[in-house]
Amino acid sequence: MIITFMSDFGTKDGYSAAVKGIIKSYSAASEIIDITHDIPVYDIHKAAFTLVTYYRTFPAGTVHLCVIDPGVGSALRGIIGVTESYYFVGPDNGLFDFVRCKEEMNFFEIETENYKKISSVFHGRDIFAPVAAQLANGVKPQLLGAKTKIDGPFQTSSFKKQGGAISVRPAVIDNFGNIVFRIMEEELKSYKITKLQFKNFTFHNILRFYNQAKEQTALCLWNSMGFLEIAVNRGNAADIAQVDLTKDELHITVEKI
Amino acid sequence: MIITFMSDFGTKDGYSAAVKGIIKSYSAASEIIDITHDIPVYDIHKAAFTLVTYYRTFPAGTVHLCVIDPGVGSALRGIIGVTESYYFVGPDNGLFDFVRCKEEMNFFEIETENYKKISSVFHGRDIFAPVAAQLANGVKPQLLGAKTKIDGPFQTSSFKKQGGAISVRPAVIDNFGNIVFRIMEEELKSYKITKLQFKNFTFHNILRFYNQAKEQTALCLWNSMGFLEIAVNRGNAADIAQVDLTKDELHITVEKI
Amino acid sequence: MIITFMSDFGTKDGYSAAVKGIIKSYSAASEIIDITHDIPVYDIHKAAFTLVTYYRTFPAGTVHLCVIDPGVGSALRGIIGVTESYYFVGPDNGLFDFVRCKEEMNFFEIETENYKKISSVFHGRDIFAPVAAQLANGVKPQLLGAKTKIDGPFQTSSFKKQGGAISVRPAVIDNFGNIVFRIMEEELKSYKITKLQFKNFTFHNILRFYNQAKEQTALCLWNSMGFLEIAVNRGNAADIAQVDLTKDELHITVEKI
Repeated sequence: MIITFMSDFGTKDGYSAAVKGIIKSYSAASEIIDITHDIPVYDIHKAAFTLVTYYRTFPAGTVHLCVIDPGVGSALRGIIGVTESYYFVGPDNGLFDFVRCKEEMNFFEIETENYKKISSVFHGRDIFAPVAAQLANGVKPQLLGAKTKIDGPFQTSSFKKQGGAISVRPAVIDNFGNIVFRIMEEELKSYKITKLQFKNFTFHNILRFYNQAKEQTALCLWNSMGFLEIAVNRGNAADIAQVDLTKDELHITVEKI
Repeated sequence: MIITFMSDFGTKDGYSAAVKGIIKSYSAASEIIDITHDIPVYDIHKAAFTLVTYYRTFPAGTVHLCVIDPGVGSALRGIIGVTESYYFVGPDNGLFDFVRCKEEMNFFEIETENYKKISSVFHGRDIFAPVAAQLANGVKPQLLGAKTKIDGPFQTSSFKKQGGAISVRPAVIDNFGNIVFRIMEEELKSYKITKLQFKNFTFHNILRFYNQAKEQTALCLWNSMGFLEIAVNRGNAADIAQVDLTKDELHITVEKI
Repeated sequence: MIITFMSDFGTKDGYSAAVKGIIKSYSAASEIIDITHDIPVYDIHKAAFTLVTYYRTFPAGTVHLCVIDPGVGSALRGIIGVTESYYFVGPDNGLFDFVRCKEEMNFFEIETENYKKISSVFHGRDIFAPVAAQLANGVKPQLLGAKTKIDGPFQTSSFKKQGGAISVRPAVIDNFGNIVFRIMEEELKSYKITKLQFKNFTFHNILRFYNQAKEQTALCLWNSMGFLEIAVNRGNAADIAQVDLTKDELHITVEKI
């Protein structure tokens, strides 16, 4: 069975290696697929967003292991999330919020007593790796923890809407300089979009293909993950716009259909 | 069967993960080997050069998936390249030019109609991944597309020669600062090399081993891939020479043997 | 069988890919686990330290391939190290010194005659890869080389101690800015630690958990690998301390228990 593995461990140290070693020690037959270990340190939101761009491409039964854990070693609980087709393993800090926006997810709180003797600090290696490996081996989540609920609001808050005016912040800037926003096509399906304004960019249409704009020209499109994106055909939109992820907002004007 | 995977997706996002998920969904038995996802964005030439340094080390039957695609989502066609031992999958933009310098290659134009309904933008995930996976499953390329030809000149042009004077540009600078040129030992086998001049470096011999030069001393050698290379034993040649990949040329003086 | 693979090849070129291709060509059934290829160029000490943080997490029988080789192509010999549970393959330059601090290790000098015809420069691909693959296939090390000894002192020297005063240098700074020192808990088990001084940081206790310190506060702890570490809870200790790895020392005051 497949275990995908995403973390903020970087690639300079042996941390991701230690997690992989434990997985293979618990589950010789599992197949580890590296997602990335270059999530910015402690950036739960970026990780949650990234997860939702790939998790559904994997075969049913895949275990998605996500270790982005600012509170490592603390009392923060570890959880197993279960959807119709997948398992998710990681700390209970909002990593799976975008997934539970999309589909029903049940949760189990990992029973850590069995693992605590091993180490007090490195949960990725000592708790999450064995749990992911056991799920890949076919162990039911009920045997690894008790059913629980995730309380409180989703931590990956989305756009604001007042009448016909929507404002939304960029979620990420990708490797190509595309600016991706936290709003999905399905969320606006009952509206007609008349205008989009982001810094110096103004758009009146949302396109499908990068090459529907001329080379080096900006466009707004629904990207291949279903999110709204500003791109420059064969160029780098983020460099041109000099985006500040903490402040800049996209303003969308809509009319009810 | 093995699928190697090279791209310019970087490691900050979930793009390469999404491609891997689709491969495993189409071909549970395939084994994905990451080559690199750090090809500079849209650098077809660097990717083509990198491919030729590794593709023949893999077992016969390996599928080499290469997604460097400045025209993503455009009308540019996808192709399958077939040599005696390997399959190649990617866009038709010159990625396989160094391979077809080396050996006979037949091409098939991917029939994209089956995939188009899925997405309009992300060919790596929606077209190239399923095609690579099906090849790994043993599906014949004839079933995935129609035989075609690659027209026009090779896009990875090589050295210029006028009488006894050859000029050639650096292809890449590697992680160790070695400067690798677009010329191979076999291309000069009927010549005697009398002098090599690159910026402030002058050489009269081409060596085999880094340690045939003293430590911190420059040398010229045929590297382990068969390309001409300027290196500094235990040092960084590119830093010393301050190479400009877009302008600098190596000048070689040869005599007919 | 598993082959782990660590190198300083970086991820811009095809070097690690070529090594992987050869491994799969010699051993179709082996499973390659990437550790990292981002070890700083020629940094044997960092690689040796990293190795010891992960090697024991893998299942018995795993082959640990380590290619950090400043003398590539030189007369430096290649070795196979054998512990109770693992094989190690790489150049004889101190890479396995931290492992042989921890447990008994026998060595075999790789018989290179069989491989020399292939290439004069790229030992990782042409010698170490086939040797690692053959070990994974179950070939005994005795068939790949003659028993040998590693002479001389360990190259990964540790702390200095004069009476009750210990001084020790940082080994590495990890991705989270934690400063890890070359001293292990077991080495100080017969001492009581009364004071630790590192630049502007002063500590009187060694803790277990990051969150035993307040947020943004520095602490000293035995980390999850057993090494002494200075960290800042949810912060970056190395940035705050402006560490110079070549000069700075931690001073520890101890009393005999």
